[in-house]
Order: sequence, then structure tokens, then C-alpha cells
Amino acid sequence: MQVQILGSSAGGPFQGRHYTAQILQQDNHYYLINCGEGTEEQMYKFGVKADRLNHVFISHLHGDHVYGLVGLITSYCLKRRTETLHCYAPAGLQELVAQTFRLTGVRTPFPMVFHVVDTEQSSLVFENRGLEVWSIPLNHRTPCAGWLFREKPRLRNIRKEKIEEYNLHYSQLPALKRGEHLLLPDGRNIPNAELTQDPPAPQQYAFCSDTAFSEKVVELVKCVDLLYHEATFTNDHQEEAAIAYHSTAEQAATVALRAGVGRLIMGHFSARYKNLEQHLSEARAVFSASDVVVEGEWYGC
Amino acid sequence: MQVQILGSSAGGPFQGRHYTAQILQQDNHYYLINCGEGTEEQMYKFGVKADRLNHVFISHLHGDHVYGLVGLITSYCLKRRTETLHCYAPAGLQELVAQTFRLTGVRTPFPMVFHVVDTEQSSLVFENRGLEVWSIPLNHRTPCAGWLFREKPRLRNIRKEKIEEYNLHYSQLPALKRGEHLLLPDGRNIPNAELTQDPPAPQQYAFCSDTAFSEKVVELVKCVDLLYHEATFTNDHQEEAAIAYHSTAEQAATVALRAGVGRLIMGHFSARYKNLEQHLSEARAVFSASDVVVEGEWYGC
Repeated sequence: MQVQILGSSAGGPFQGRHYTAQILQQDNHYYLINCGEGTEEQMYKFGVKADRLNHVFISHLHGDHVYGLVGLITSYCLKRRTETLHCYAPAGLQELVAQTFRLTGVRTPFPMVFHVVDTEQSSLVFENRGLEVWSIPLNHRTPCAGWLFREKPRLRNIRKEKIEEYNLHYSQLPALKRGEHLLLPDGRNIPNAELTQDPPAPQQYAFCSDTAFSEKVVELVKCVDLLYHEATFTNDHQEEAAIAYHSTAEQAATVALRAGVGRLIMGHFSARYKNLEQHLSEARAVFSASDVVVEGEWYGC
Repeated sequence: MQVQILGSSAGGPFQGRHYTAQILQQDNHYYLINCGEGTEEQMYKFGVKADRLNHVFISHLHGDHVYGLVGLITSYCLKRRTETLHCYAPAGLQELVAQTFRLTGVRTPFPMVFHVVDTEQSSLVFENRGLEVWSIPLNHRTPCAGWLFREKPRLRNIRKEKIEEYNLHYSQLPALKRGEHLLLPDGRNIPNAELTQDPPAPQQYAFCSDTAFSEKVVELVKCVDLLYHEATFTNDHQEEAAIAYHSTAEQAATVALRAGVGRLIMGHFSARYKNLEQHLSEARAVFSASDVVVEGEWYGC
């Protein structure tokens, strides 16, 4: 599981930074997290295959997180998409898309499903064979949800040399992958641990933007491998952060520290900052495994 | 009067091309023509002072011509703009902006005036001391208006050496600039032509996108100095152009030829074309003073 940053800006396409959007890759699946204006162009720039996206997670209905969605869907229409598109967001997204398309004459030739997400409590919003996505209630000035991506435990990996040694038939493999022992025709019982090895540990990624510092967030992102937390401001603008329900870099790092996460990456920087050294130093003073995101870069868990 | 191209693409931010938007400069005033997604970023890239824009002309309510407007206005809000913003467009733009802002929590702290433009007949939609803007009914699959920017005749320029020669007082200059003759105290009458010279000729720029070939357009853009006409397709895709109410490069050049314009610039290219040599050759075969636009470039009348 890894995430590519498409945008890191809080306001305006300035300082070479773009509005919030991320691509999460898990196994061979891709998910879009937020979709500010210009997201489609960022995807094109970084070689993202937009056609492979079937699930879009929108944190909240502020323009810098959602204004790119109607353009992306319109492009899907031009390309004659047929796959269903699922959108997960607080209430209002379906109406925003519907009103815009009514007024600009867009008809989607593919099904769209809008999932309204409860922003008051964490809930499971998506699940497939390998992944669960849970909402994270955030503390912003409009209903807002972060997203916790939790890989499910994988099946055990079979040691290749054992297949030959015990002349294993492919029909026997699923049980062994699930952890069962092997009963041989001669009555011997081979313990699973001899035949298989541990799969990679399931990983967790949490996306938290936009939000003021929140104890609830600390609880919900406990021990995730990778945390993206907004850090709109530095300590010079603490008051402004509080008024706007945003975070400072130090607050993002405090969440990371208290939750015991593996690594913190910060984004959603105010356009006033030409460089991000202050963010980095203020965060690292609290939590050393902190970084500011770079657009186009992939961040692993 | 000159125009800067911010976008030249019909669909998708591909081949390095962006959605339709242009900046018209006339004297010391700037006007925005169309505002596809990403226009604000293009303005930033090319150093356009977005704060100086008070008038936005939107041809029609298709996403590739308007989806950037709500983001631009939202940025104006963040920058605490106070100046009135005037938007000229076919019916529906005010509702599009209002619905989007209702659902995304945007309140504009400055006045906005939406001028609904008749797309059935040409009418004067804006006027100041130096410029008139007229709508041009276009032939698209949704109500659509082009824009004719007509400079007003300027006052005559006074020959500097004559000010000293006849000891002219500044209170006498306005009448001379208007073309009046000079009556001296000794009874002599000095003809205006001796005192002044012709000002630059008023110029005309016409923006025509999106549209199928239209005889009505030919009539309305007669003898303009500079014509921007969409050329979404080449002759290989004539049928598609007709179905979608778009033009080929040859059709754009035919309008230019029949209207006797000074120069044709073409844009709104389908994303399928990697290069635009075919557009250029097909247009120039009909009208030699044809060009394909380059984003960021200024085109003079």
C-alpha cells in the first residue's frame, strides 16, 4: 500500500503547489482521495491511469477538496466510461454534482453511487477482499471526514520448495494458505509452519484533512503505519489555525506522537509559505519521523 | 488591444493543452474570456494579475469553458476582494455559481453582477470609455455567445511642437483633440489638421467558440482585425464536427476569408491531435493569415 501526492496546497495554485488530491494504491487497486481543481491535470502529469479509479473519497465540501470532481466525471463521459463510480463524502456531494450537471448539460452514461458518510462517528464505508476503509470524524468548520485505509490480513505464503517435496496438488493450497496443517496419506501430520511463511503484515494509512487538532483523531489513527495530517500553518499563525479549524505542523506532529504512528507526512500548506522548512523543523522537534509531502512522490507505509 | 491565450484544449488537460480561457488587454484594462478548469493556475503561470479582472465573459455553460470560475471566485473571497465582479453569460451561470457556493459554504464579500446575454441576436453587453463588447450568436448545441470587442475611436493626438508654437493653454486641448479648429486672438483660423494627427485606428477582436460554421458569424465578424475561431477538428473528422456543432480548421478559415478579417487564430483543439500541423495546413489553404494558438502567447490585432 502506498500513496501518491497530487496536491499539497490549502489555497490557490501558488508556489508550484496544487489543491488536495491523492492516489492510494493497494495491491492492484487505485483509489482517489479528494479532488481539488486541477486534479485531472495532475493525474495526467504524473501518469496516473484515471480510468482505473472506481472509488473516490471526498473529505468535505470545500472547493479546494472537491472542485475538480465535476471535470473528472465530465471527462469520463467523453471517454464513454461504463464502470460504476462510487463517491464517498459527507452529505451534499450528490446534489453538487447533480446541480452542476443539470446546468452544464452533462449526462453520465455510467452508474454513479453516492455514499453519504457520517462525520460524527467512525464507520466502515468500503470493503473488498483486501481492504477496509473507515471514516474518521474530523474537527473542521464544515462536516468533514478523514479516511483510514486498513489492509486485511493476507493469506499465508506457501514455501515453493515444499510443493515439490510433498507433491502438493493445487486444490490443497487454499487450506494451507489459511493456516491449516497437512495430513499426508501415510498418516503423518505436517505443521503449517513448515509449509508456509508469514505474509507481509497488513498496513494502515490514515488521511486527515482538514482538521483542527483532535483527541478523537489521535484515538482513531493509533499505530497506523503512515499518517497524512494537514499542517496548514506554522506556529507563527496558531491563532489563525484555531479560528479556521486548521492545524499547525506542531499539532500534526503531536497527533503522530500520541498515536504512535510509524511515519507522518504533512500537507495542505497555506499559500503564504514559500518554503516549508519551518513546518519541517517544528514538526520534527515533536516527532522525528515527520516529512512535508512533495507532489508526484509516492509514500510507502 | 491584444489577447493572451491561457488554454487551447477542447477536452481534457492533454498534450500540454488546457481548457479555454483568454485575457484581453485593452489600454490598461483586462478582461477574462471563458474560464475552464485550471484557468487560475494558468493565470498564475503566465503572470496575469487576476485581481485586476472585473469583467468575465463566458460563452456557454459547458464544463470546459466554465468549471474554473467557482475556484477563481473562491480565491477572490480568500483574498478579501472588494471590487464588483461582472459576469456576462447565457442564462444559468448565476444559478450554477449560487448552487455551488450554497453547497460548498462560500460567501462572496464583494458584489457580483450576472448579466444574462441573449444568444439569439447580437447585442451590446458592455461599454466603457474606450471599448464596446457585443455578443455574437453562435451555433452550438447549447445556448452560446461569442464576443466582439470593438475599440471606440480615440481622440486626435496633438502635435507637441504646436503647443509651444501657438502658446496653447491646456484648457484648449480637449476641443482640439475632438477635431475642432483653432481661432487665434488675431483672427487667424488654424485648421485642426495642422495641430493634430490621427490616433491609432480602433481595433476589433472577435472570439467565436464553440460553434459550427455559421453564416451569421461571418456577417458579425466582418473586417475584424483579429478573429479567434474554434477549430476542434481537421477535415478527417468533418462528420463528428457537424454532429457536435463544432468546426474544422477549414471552416474556421472559411469564416475568416468570407468576413475579410485581418488575421485568424484557431484553438479549442480536440485532445486526439498530438500536433496541429494538419489544422494549420488545412486552414492556410483557404486563408493564409491563419495560425494555431500557443498557450501563454499574446496575439495583437
